[in-house]
Amino acid sequence: MNVQRFSISDAKLAKSPGQNAEIYVRNLVDENHGGSITIGYGRYEPGQSLAETLAVDDTMIILEGSLSVSTSDGTVTAGPGDIVYMPKGQSVTITTQGDGALTAYVTYPHWPQFHND
Amino acid sequence: MNVQRFSISDAKLAKSPGQNAEIYVRNLVDENHGGSITIGYGRYEPGQSLAETLAVDDTMIILEGSLSVSTSDGTVTAGPGDIVYMPKGQSVTITTQGDGALTAYVTYPHWPQFHND
Repeated sequence: MNVQRFSISDAKLAKSPGQNAEIYVRNLVDENHGGSITIGYGRYEPGQSLAETLAVDDTMIILEGSLSVSTSDGTVTAGPGDIVYMPKGQSVTITTQGDGALTAYVTYPHWPQFHND
Repeated sequence: MNVQRFSISDAKLAKSPGQNAEIYVRNLVDENHGGSITIGYGRYEPGQSLAETLAVDDTMIILEGSLSVSTSDGTVTAGPGDIVYMPKGQSVTITTQGDGALTAYVTYPHWPQFHND
């Protein structure tokens, strides 16, 4: 794969299989592209809550809006330009208020949950 | 390592050793944190040019401003919210005009060039 530029307008966001919240994602780079990481965009509508245990190391970069990530240690809230690093094995609850959030994500290794085929 | 939130205001940016352009970076997560990826922020002043061959898979998310990435295949220009994926082994020249650029980056595996110790 060569150098690639992606924009949110290129990404056809959709719910992940089995995921019922109003959270829409799209992988742009994944296991089909020869590397070790998954890259994509996610849009979280307002008032959503998603609980999961991380199967991979997941880095979210907040592009618009804000979201909160809660663990047994407490809650962090992140806004535009902030980075949230969620290591593999952590149990998190991601919540949105207000305007929801637009994120970019990078996971290592690939996250099978985010198949969009 | 637990879930972490980072903001650009937390990052003490500095030139990488041996790098003379007006490009300032800071790792926030690296080989000292037990994972497989490096996460950080980078600020590129206007009118800079940096040529390198990627030693790792490098993902840049443009937070402010814009930058261009040139390879033997051509040039892509990325602005706020855009993602540029630069696979390991690619030879790139990153250039800025205008206001320069603020980026977040995630590399796999760790990028030794970005030690800030």
